[in-house]
Amino acid sequence: MTPVPAEAVKNTKGAAARNKKIQVPGFLASAVSAQVKKGHTRPDLGLIFSEVPAVTSGVFTRNLVKAAPVQIDLGRIVERKGRAVLVNSGNANACTGAAGLRDARKLSLKVSQTLSIPDSQVFLASTGVIGQRLPLPRMMKAVPALAHSLSPDGLPAVAQAIMTTDTFPKLVSEEISVGRKKVRIVGMAKGAGMLHPDMATMLCFVLTDLAVSPALLDRFLRKATDQSFNRITVDGDTSTNDLILVMANGLAGNPVLDQPRTNGARLFSSALDQVLFELARMCVRDGEGATKDITLQVQGARNEEEARILALTVAHSPLVKTALFGQDANWGRILAALGRSGVSFDPERVDIYFDRVQIVKNGISKGPKEEVRAGAVLKKRSLTIRIDLHQGSAETRIYTCDLSLDYVRINADYRT
Amino acid sequence: MTPVPAEAVKNTKGAAARNKKIQVPGFLASAVSAQVKKGHTRPDLGLIFSEVPAVTSGVFTRNLVKAAPVQIDLGRIVERKGRAVLVNSGNANACTGAAGLRDARKLSLKVSQTLSIPDSQVFLASTGVIGQRLPLPRMMKAVPALAHSLSPDGLPAVAQAIMTTDTFPKLVSEEISVGRKKVRIVGMAKGAGMLHPDMATMLCFVLTDLAVSPALLDRFLRKATDQSFNRITVDGDTSTNDLILVMANGLAGNPVLDQPRTNGARLFSSALDQVLFELARMCVRDGEGATKDITLQVQGARNEEEARILALTVAHSPLVKTALFGQDANWGRILAALGRSGVSFDPERVDIYFDRVQIVKNGISKGPKEEVRAGAVLKKRSLTIRIDLHQGSAETRIYTCDLSLDYVRINADYRT
Repeated sequence: MTPVPAEAVKNTKGAAARNKKIQVPGFLASAVSAQVKKGHTRPDLGLIFSEVPAVTSGVFTRNLVKAAPVQIDLGRIVERKGRAVLVNSGNANACTGAAGLRDARKLSLKVSQTLSIPDSQVFLASTGVIGQRLPLPRMMKAVPALAHSLSPDGLPAVAQAIMTTDTFPKLVSEEISVGRKKVRIVGMAKGAGMLHPDMATMLCFVLTDLAVSPALLDRFLRKATDQSFNRITVDGDTSTNDLILVMANGLAGNPVLDQPRTNGARLFSSALDQVLFELARMCVRDGEGATKDITLQVQGARNEEEARILALTVAHSPLVKTALFGQDANWGRILAALGRSGVSFDPERVDIYFDRVQIVKNGISKGPKEEVRAGAVLKKRSLTIRIDLHQGSAETRIYTCDLSLDYVRINADYRT
Repeated sequence: MTPVPAEAVKNTKGAAARNKKIQVPGFLASAVSAQVKKGHTRPDLGLIFSEVPAVTSGVFTRNLVKAAPVQIDLGRIVERKGRAVLVNSGNANACTGAAGLRDARKLSLKVSQTLSIPDSQVFLASTGVIGQRLPLPRMMKAVPALAHSLSPDGLPAVAQAIMTTDTFPKLVSEEISVGRKKVRIVGMAKGAGMLHPDMATMLCFVLTDLAVSPALLDRFLRKATDQSFNRITVDGDTSTNDLILVMANGLAGNPVLDQPRTNGARLFSSALDQVLFELARMCVRDGEGATKDITLQVQGARNEEEARILALTVAHSPLVKTALFGQDANWGRILAALGRSGVSFDPERVDIYFDRVQIVKNGISKGPKEEVRAGAVLKKRSLTIRIDLHQGSAETRIYTCDLSLDYVRINADYRT
């Protein structure tokens, strides 16, 4: 097993848990190098296998252009039943037409035959360059090796195999008690360019041994997604390959959760929220070239939708993002972004804070002293920009990062 | 007079015209250094003066947050009459509250008293840093010097004084005949960061000696703006300071144009279109850090609005823009941007061309040979990306540039 740096494993129960094995009963995993990118020898093909059929729920890209694996998964998710996930980095298998779909189907069939499971219970995910065919022979050849090396300890290796421009693997592990049974939840993700995260692939897999009804799992996944990955992206704006899959194999032996208002359901929902939230935050922290980890909090809006539009307009403004990179407390750009958002508000009532330093009061500078103090806040790696509109009581938070020279370098050179 | 590089003066009548003086009968202009940015000695304050009242039309930012000069101009433009424009770079006088408005009013009054013209016929424009008060004493002191040095040859100096991150002044000169009278049109502009042009200030002034009715001038300005500056920006998304002012003083002596369907009106409208279009293109070419001058043409859309949304989504995608900077013919990112635009189309019918090289046919790569040829096109400074959706007959063009390392450098360091 490839070693995983300790900082990549987050467990809300504290540091002691970091030494725990990242396992979920009934789930096996493995990763190998299939040289998806020719000549690259790092693991780029991963397999997750559930020893029993798992209730499976998914959230998929809303991009009109859907990669071949997403097209296949969308047909299969309606059954809410899964046994395996085959995932590769290095090639998105997107915009590859009918040939790309055939490639994906062949891979799925190979997994199904190798593991003796129904083809319809194999899910596929890909991330990487768009528009190129998969190196099918190399990948087909790798499937038996993957199956052969499946192990309860294999999940961290998969988290590494799905990395593209990520600088560290993203793994979160949780444990809760439901009906006196211990329930494990492990999530992994790969992040993406954070300027418009919608355009770069985000993959997330969550595995649990909870027993839960398909309807309830669906409901909880959607709620958790809305509070995590949807806070770091634009409504409806997603890449060709984005997906989140949750598999619950029931081996914990708890009474099947099927009512939302029970203690067990609340506990699981909250844990799933936490796992997705932690993974989403890790993706922001690992945003391409990011040097700043920004929480954008909009308060005092008339309603949550307006708060969200305002926060996203600021979060996506290249002028705001480059100023943050330059550690310049350029609040004028923030105010200008708010003003062009399309949301109506009174500019002369806006307050802006950098952490606890109020830099703008009633739409104008609080003074040179505060600008200096805000400049000091900007030297930090993580900070919160709080905007209070004083128009109502709605608020929202969006998580984002700055726009750095490295973002441009990474994305200008991505294919070379 | 500060010399203007030949390439900055565009005249569609040919190279010979470049040596013509940039003048419009009845208009005088001048520029001085008022040290709007303390210690900077380059000219940063300009004055344009019409010897007779000029029919004046304007287009202003739709940003909810409006700079003080824009707020003042909006009150005055309803009269459609102007005598002077005072414009400064180095400070936007935006987000400066009631104090900023008072500063602007004092400057206007000073111009009106110095030139003995009605205060209500003085227009103001500012560009630069948001949120800081103007250095009023220095600017007030500079007004008499400006008035004193007014000259028919002063327009190029104003074009230089309004520059901020622009690397060259933007001037266009045209001459037409209306009712057997020679009519001159001179336009000048300052450009802006082109990633989200809406967020950086664009100023444009057009001066002509045409005799025209206010209603007709308004109509032609709106049409010309829609075909030029609105093609390099997002609907309704503008900075706190953006404005276009057209002044027509009537000294050409042509019969007053007041009907749109006459030959003279058509001729003038077309010339105004051309002047604004050339200036807008210059702004793109001079986009902050731009290394590429991109024409994005979307064809075969169901209607023009959809074509526009698709083109703008591609034009604003940081992943597309960084790929263009990297000279990477990464058509997958273009297709992915189209797919998340919210417009419905069949991805499997999309064709994409880089100049004459077709790189995508029916949504997939045309082949490695074409990718190599498209890569060669990307080495050029100017190129056209043509997207054909095959869904209808509507089309549009948007002008944009790439996202370079220098864009980030410029905008991270802007205030330091």
